[in-house]
Order: sequence, then C-alpha cells, then structure tokens
Amino acid sequence: MVRRGGRNRGGRAANVNQHAAGAIRQMDWRIPVNIDAPTEPLDEEGVQRIHEAGLKVMEEIGIEFLNKEALEIFRRAGCRVVGQNVRLGREFVLEMIDRCPSEFMITPRNPEHRLNIGGRHMVFGNVSSPPNTFDLDNGKQVGTQAWFRKFMKLTQYFNCIHMACGYPVEPVDVHPSVRHLECLYDKLTLSDKVVHAYSLGTERVEDAIEMVRIAAGVTDDEFDRTPRMFTNINSTSPLKHDWPMIDGALRMARRGQAVFVTPFTLAGAMAPVTLPGAVVLSMAEGLAAIALLQFVSPGAPCVFGTFTSNVDMRSGAPAFGTPEYVRATQITGQMCRFYGLPLRASNACAANVPDGQAMWESVNSMWSAVQAGVNVVYHSAGWLEGGLIACPEKFVMDCETLQQFQRYFDRSLLETDRGGLAVDAIREVGPDGHYFGASHTRERYTTAFYEPFLSDWRNFEAFENSGGVWTAQRANRLYKEILADYEPPPFDSGLHEELTEFVDRRRREGGAPTDF
Amino acid sequence: MVRRGGRNRGGRAANVNQHAAGAIRQMDWRIPVNIDAPTEPLDEEGVQRIHEAGLKVMEEIGIEFLNKEALEIFRRAGCRVVGQNVRLGREFVLEMIDRCPSEFMITPRNPEHRLNIGGRHMVFGNVSSPPNTFDLDNGKQVGTQAWFRKFMKLTQYFNCIHMACGYPVEPVDVHPSVRHLECLYDKLTLSDKVVHAYSLGTERVEDAIEMVRIAAGVTDDEFDRTPRMFTNINSTSPLKHDWPMIDGALRMARRGQAVFVTPFTLAGAMAPVTLPGAVVLSMAEGLAAIALLQFVSPGAPCVFGTFTSNVDMRSGAPAFGTPEYVRATQITGQMCRFYGLPLRASNACAANVPDGQAMWESVNSMWSAVQAGVNVVYHSAGWLEGGLIACPEKFVMDCETLQQFQRYFDRSLLETDRGGLAVDAIREVGPDGHYFGASHTRERYTTAFYEPFLSDWRNFEAFENSGGVWTAQRANRLYKEILADYEPPPFDSGLHEELTEFVDRRRREGGAPTDF
Repeated sequence: MVRRGGRNRGGRAANVNQHAAGAIRQMDWRIPVNIDAPTEPLDEEGVQRIHEAGLKVMEEIGIEFLNKEALEIFRRAGCRVVGQNVRLGREFVLEMIDRCPSEFMITPRNPEHRLNIGGRHMVFGNVSSPPNTFDLDNGKQVGTQAWFRKFMKLTQYFNCIHMACGYPVEPVDVHPSVRHLECLYDKLTLSDKVVHAYSLGTERVEDAIEMVRIAAGVTDDEFDRTPRMFTNINSTSPLKHDWPMIDGALRMARRGQAVFVTPFTLAGAMAPVTLPGAVVLSMAEGLAAIALLQFVSPGAPCVFGTFTSNVDMRSGAPAFGTPEYVRATQITGQMCRFYGLPLRASNACAANVPDGQAMWESVNSMWSAVQAGVNVVYHSAGWLEGGLIACPEKFVMDCETLQQFQRYFDRSLLETDRGGLAVDAIREVGPDGHYFGASHTRERYTTAFYEPFLSDWRNFEAFENSGGVWTAQRANRLYKEILADYEPPPFDSGLHEELTEFVDRRRREGGAPTDF
Repeated sequence: MVRRGGRNRGGRAANVNQHAAGAIRQMDWRIPVNIDAPTEPLDEEGVQRIHEAGLKVMEEIGIEFLNKEALEIFRRAGCRVVGQNVRLGREFVLEMIDRCPSEFMITPRNPEHRLNIGGRHMVFGNVSSPPNTFDLDNGKQVGTQAWFRKFMKLTQYFNCIHMACGYPVEPVDVHPSVRHLECLYDKLTLSDKVVHAYSLGTERVEDAIEMVRIAAGVTDDEFDRTPRMFTNINSTSPLKHDWPMIDGALRMARRGQAVFVTPFTLAGAMAPVTLPGAVVLSMAEGLAAIALLQFVSPGAPCVFGTFTSNVDMRSGAPAFGTPEYVRATQITGQMCRFYGLPLRASNACAANVPDGQAMWESVNSMWSAVQAGVNVVYHSAGWLEGGLIACPEKFVMDCETLQQFQRYFDRSLLETDRGGLAVDAIREVGPDGHYFGASHTRERYTTAFYEPFLSDWRNFEAFENSGGVWTAQRANRLYKEILADYEPPPFDSGLHEELTEFVDRRRREGGAPTDF
C-alpha cells in the first residue's frame, strides 16, 4: 500500500483546524448559522397552491419507480401501483413527511468535524461529480485520480468546506469496478470530514457503508444508531426514479444514514417552463421518494435537494445563478420550511472558466442559498460548466467567497452596545482626527473586519508593481502552495490497516459489477 | 460647434428605448420595483439605539459646517453654534426630517426617462468621478474627454442605466474652468436621461442648473416646480461639511432640485471601527445636512446616501462588497425606513481589473442594495479600484448583472395560477416526454427566461471553438460594437442651439474660478 503514501499519523492529536504554515491564513472551522430571515417571494396562498399541485401530481398522475422493491413497498403501504406508476395519496405522503427529522447530525471519523444538518445551520460541500478538470496550466482534461486527490486535499485543507460530497472529479483512469474503493479510500485517508456514497449499485453502496464504518472504528450497531455518511439521489425527471438510486437510498435509510433527494428539474427541458410548475414537479418527485424512505425507516434523516434552474431556450443548455434559479431556490426554501424538511442547494454556474461570469453566477447562487435558508450547499467550491468541470482555481476563489458568507453571519458585526455604537470614540476623535489611532480602534482592529486570503485590495499601482496578476492567476499560484502545505489528518493506525485490508480484499474480489 | 458632432435630431420622435441594430438585444427601459421584503439584521431596539446615538452626536458633539451661510441659518433655526460647530437639538432634527418627501420624481429633458425616487423603486446610475480609465487595450490611463464621451454613450445606450450620475470619468484634458460646461453639454446632448451637477462652486452649480433648464425648454418658474436634476454631496468625515458641497446643496434645494447627502464613512479610518458606530456617524452627518436643507426649503427632495464600508486594517485601503459593507448597507436601509428617507448606495468593488474578484464584490454590493431596499444605486456600472477607475469592460459586465436584477423583480416568475403551476402540462408530458415541445412551453418560451447578451452559457467545446474568450475579453469586443451602434437621442434644434450659445458665452466669459 506504499503507493498511497499515507503516513501513519494515528498518534497525533485530533485536529479540527487546518493551519498550514505558509500558504494562507484562513478562518477557523465553524458551522455557519444563517441569522437572516428568509426571502419569501410567494405569499401563503402561493405556498399552499404549490403544495396542493404537488399532491395532485402524486395522486392523479403518479411517479414511476423503476425499482421492484420500491413498488412492493408502496403496494404494502396501500398506494395504487399500476406497472411502475405509483399514485400516492395525500394522507400517506403527509404522514410520511411528518416523520422526517427537521434537524439531525452527521458524524464523520473525526467527531470534531460533526455537522448539524437543518434548522438555521448552513454547511458547505466541495464540487461533486464533474467528469473533467480545467486549470490554467492544462486547460480542460478528462478527470484523473491525481486530480481527484488534489481536490480532496483542498477539501480537507479549507476549514470553510465542511463535507466531502461526491467525487470532486471522476477519476476516469481508475477502472469502474474498483473506482469506488479507491475513491472512498482516498476520501477517508486524505480527509476526516463527512463523506458521501454514490447510489450506483448495491455493491458500491455496501462497500462504502462498510468502509465508513471501519474508518469510524464502530460496530454495525453503533454505525446504525447515528448518521455517519450520506448519499444523494436524483430523480430522472420528469416523474421517474431509477433503480440504483432508489436501491442505494433504501439501503442507506435502513441503516440510519442520511439521504438527500434531489430532483434535477430544468425548467423548459425536463420540467415545466414556469418556475412554480418546475417546483411543483420537483416537490412531487422528491416527496414521493422521501415518503418511501420514511415508510421503510421511520425518522430516517432526509434532505430535500433543489436543482431547479432554467435552460437557455436557444440552445437547451442549462443556466445557473440566473434570476430564475434564484427565485426557484427561494420558493423551494418556502416549501421545505412548510414541510419541515432540511434543504440542499448548490453553488452553481454555467461559466466555462474562472472569470467574472463564473463569479457573478456563483455568488448569485450563494445568495439564493442564504435567502432560501438552505442547509447544505453542494458544489460550493470548484464547479464550472454547469457541473462538467472541476477547477482548482475556482475552488480557491469560491472558498474566498464562502469565508465571507461565514463572516457575514457573525453577530459581532451587529453589536449595538455602548462599544458598538462608539459615541465615546466619535467624541474622542472629534472633527479633526482619524480613527486609526483611537483606543476604540486599537482594541478591535485585529478582528473587526474580514481578512481575505485571495482578494487584492491594494491600489492599482501596488497591484501592477507586483505583476498585475488577475484573480484566477492568483488562485492558480495559491492552490499549488496549499497542496504543498497540505497535511493528511491523523488516522488511527489500526483502523487504517483494517480499511486497507478491506479495500485489498474487495479489489481481489473484482470490485463491483460494471454492466448496469 | 461642428467638432461636437451633434446632429440635429429634433424632428425625430422621442424614443425611450435604445434598440441598436447589431450590437446586442437588451431589456426595455423600466423602473425596477423591488418586491422583496428587506433584510433586517437589527431588531427594533438596535434601530432605536442607533437613532438615539445619532441624535446624541448631533446634540452633544455637534457637526462642523465650514460654510458661513449654513451657520447663519442654523443660528436662525435656534441651534447652538460655536465657531463652526453646530449642535442640533433632537426636536429640530426630527421636525426637519419629517419634512422630507419619502418619494418623488426627477424629470429629465426626455420625460419618458422620468425617474421614481423612493418607495420600492430602485434605479441605477453609471460610474461617477474616477480620475482614470482602465481598459484591456490600454491599461490604466488618466481620464480624457474622449473616454468621458464613450462612457456617456454607454450610459445612454443601456436601458438598464436610468440616470447619469457624476462624470463617468474626469476629463482631465479639459481645463477645470470650463470642464463643467463641456461635460454638461456632452451629458445633455449624448444622453436624455437625468443628469447630476457637482457642488464644486457657485458658478458651476448655477451653470449646470441653467443648462438643464435650457435643455428642458422650461422657464425658471417651471424649472423650480419639479425636480429635474440632482447633486450629491459628501461630508468630510468625521463630523464635517465643507463649503462648496453645502453651497451647492443649498442652491439646489432652494430651486426644488434633488440633493443626495452621502457621508463617506470608512469604518476604521474616518469612522469608528464598529459598523453600528460607523452608521451612527454617517446618520449624524447626513441628517444634520438634510435638516439644514429642509429648514431652508421645506419638502425639498433629499436622499440619504450610504458609503459605509471598511478599510483593510493592514494597508488602510478601502474595501467594498465585503461582509461588513453588506451589513452596513442593510443597517442603513433600516435607519432610512425608520426616518422615511429614500436611500442611495453603490455598486462598489475594490478590484483593479474586471475579473472574478471585481464581480463577486460588485454582486455582493448589488445584493446588499436589494436587501437594504436601496432606491438609487450609484456607480452601478463601470467602477473599479474603489472608484479610482472607470472601465468600459466592467460597465458592460455590470449591465449584464443589472438586467438580471431587473428580471429578478419580475412578478411573472412567481405566478401560481393554473398556467404557472403547470399540472396540466405535467400530465400532458408524462414520465417519458420532455417539455421542449409541450404547448405550455411553446406558449411561453420566448419570455420565460432571462436572455443574456454577454454571458456564455454554451458548453466548453462550443466556447473553446469560438476562441475560448473570457468574459472581460467578450466585454471588450462588445463595448466597441455598442459604441459603433450608438445613436444620440433626439434633441429639439432650438433648444440645442440655445444650449450651445449658453456654453459658448460662458466659455468666452472664462467659465468658473479654479482657485478654491
């Protein structure tokens, strides 16, 4: 196992914050708490109408489940099943949704990286599932294991990235039969944050569950008692859930693990061209799957995922961070508060390169997440080209903005006590002084303002004298310095060995089937 | 006057929308109406505390007015004046603030470009007052008249730019004695939108007023009866108002024209390091000046301007679009609603070039304006380097985001009638179709989604095959095509002639003094 290069660090104390020596000064680990009231574009009647329309779709049109086990369960639950079409009655759906916890925790192998999901908490996960990379040095390339590992190191390094979602890039150079083994091994050794398992076949899901259990050093029973990982499933819009996604979701729910259900409803393509209509479809697809999971495993931790955006009607290309995307996310936030469900969204953009468009689209997506009361932001760092590209420069640029959102939630900005109002300082400084030297300033200046690691706030001449380096180029330099500074998190040597043995055994057994 | 190149277009019908042939398809002129509830970071007690602290500063510490006329007026109003220090009692301040209209209109020479200021309206003005330009072809240069005119053409061209604020760039190659004449002439002929006069000396203000009156074709009395232009004054923080700003503000208010009062309170430099403290100082400075204007001219249209941000405590450089900037803007929004005052903010950034940082900072500034219920966004297109640079590429990039904010406010996105909910379409398309061809889509697709003019939403391969042009470079091409397509607005030939004669006479007279 030498080639994995994992040094034994089990003897070191657990360490929640990555404080690299030379690369950057970053904010400490924290779970952001969104203190803003949500933006509510619909009135109560509008919420009620979407609610009723979603129920109507489930009751009268039905959802297709391409999974025999699911159909059997729905039959048992008293739903009308015709072929693969399931009609879910409103009483059933609402009773099942009521079983969902509105808040829960996910505990990774390092319990100091435990996550609060739901309520006013808001956690950020890395980019997930692009088949390609783009960086300034190489342009667009097919994803590799080498890049996968770089992105996992960035994921671990940044304290503002709270969880590892799907593969940050698909390592196409690793055979699909063993890819999940290699990737989960890398995730669990290069990082100690919450990890995700793809619902892409029984063996993959079961392997991932077993690896997370081993890395946590817990028994099967202990594992089942508390969420330690999650999967994310997408419906095949319109109105359809495929076999492997539902199979994985059922397996995870039965073991008490978290399931995110994320319909991929692009308005005008696989969903209605009107945003409320696209949200109706999304709610019907998502709630139907969550109802299934709650019937099988009452109280299983579930998260509703929104991926409602629009397409460019000229080309059919998906667009993200648009006005329509922002409103759809806000509306879905209203619906999820209505149902008491935690909400997942994304830091999405359509741009192909880490430029101005990428950032205005991404920042729009992030603001919509804040305004919608989103609890989990998938793809929060590194995503380009509508999710087809993972980009290290974008990863670093996004982290600069994520830190600023964390800072934005800091209540210390809003203190209106005597010190905060500063009338004494205004009196002291008077009309002829400045505040640089005031005691009021000296007591507070080290923590008064957000301190950037990437933004260049100098004047143009200083900027130009140091080379006139644009943001993407600065990010290019910085991500390499960060990778050089990265240190793997401590890992108990016994557990590491057990994990390695499991992977070796499963690899010898041929891994997972690749014929589906 | 041939060199000005102004063709006589008085015979053409007035035209509210610029629809150039080949450059871009843009949104029609409209006054955006902000339909979102504001974000309120402070509770009622916090608002009350800032209110009380601001009154205390005015009552106990006082504001310096370096303007004899203002001191005399304050004396007459019963305020305690010692030297240049004015102590304003709370009853006086609150009585004066109560006189401010919470909503008013400004009517430019083309009445179809009339602006609603206040309420839920939100208008966008161009970048103002940078001494320099930066563009991709030339880098940073000192401002020129040629660039001034280019920016004025962009200001007129874009329907999402509702007003011409200060000089979009300072034309340093025009002598200061006649610069205001040349600039106002260009503004009034290259554009027919609301214009601004700098309060930089009696003669300049009076010349500007006269030129706007002539261009509007109205008598002095008619002019005085309704706002047709505005000035913006800044305090010299801390606690000070300079002579020319107050002189200009008094002249404008007496003639019924709009005055924006914008303290420039950078937390940690000329304002307290705490945000609530910086807002307290800003409110005290701004309300004191507004009280003066309301005493002299009851009901004069006034706007409170916020420019509260923070500095980088390492370098002292101003920062914009930061978490602190966003919160300060939101808090100031709460205060202005408390006082019933219209609010001005800015689309500000610290970045030196039109890159990712520029856009995340600018979009943060814009979202803070939306969340604060801002009525006028100064500098909404083209600003870089904390206001020291006007950039044509950034202008075009900002307009793409401004259009998206306009679209964001469109209620059609939120329709939950039968068509909006789309259950019939969901039934029609079923589980195996797609929505591209559905009648529900066909009836709506042309107006369903925002249509960008600059964003590239194609996939990477299409993007690369067309040259892989990053956003700033696309904007560089586009602003030149727009300038080539620009057409000056119609202008009555008689009024044009009168305006030209006025400028010629004032130029012969030597313009304005330059020794202050």
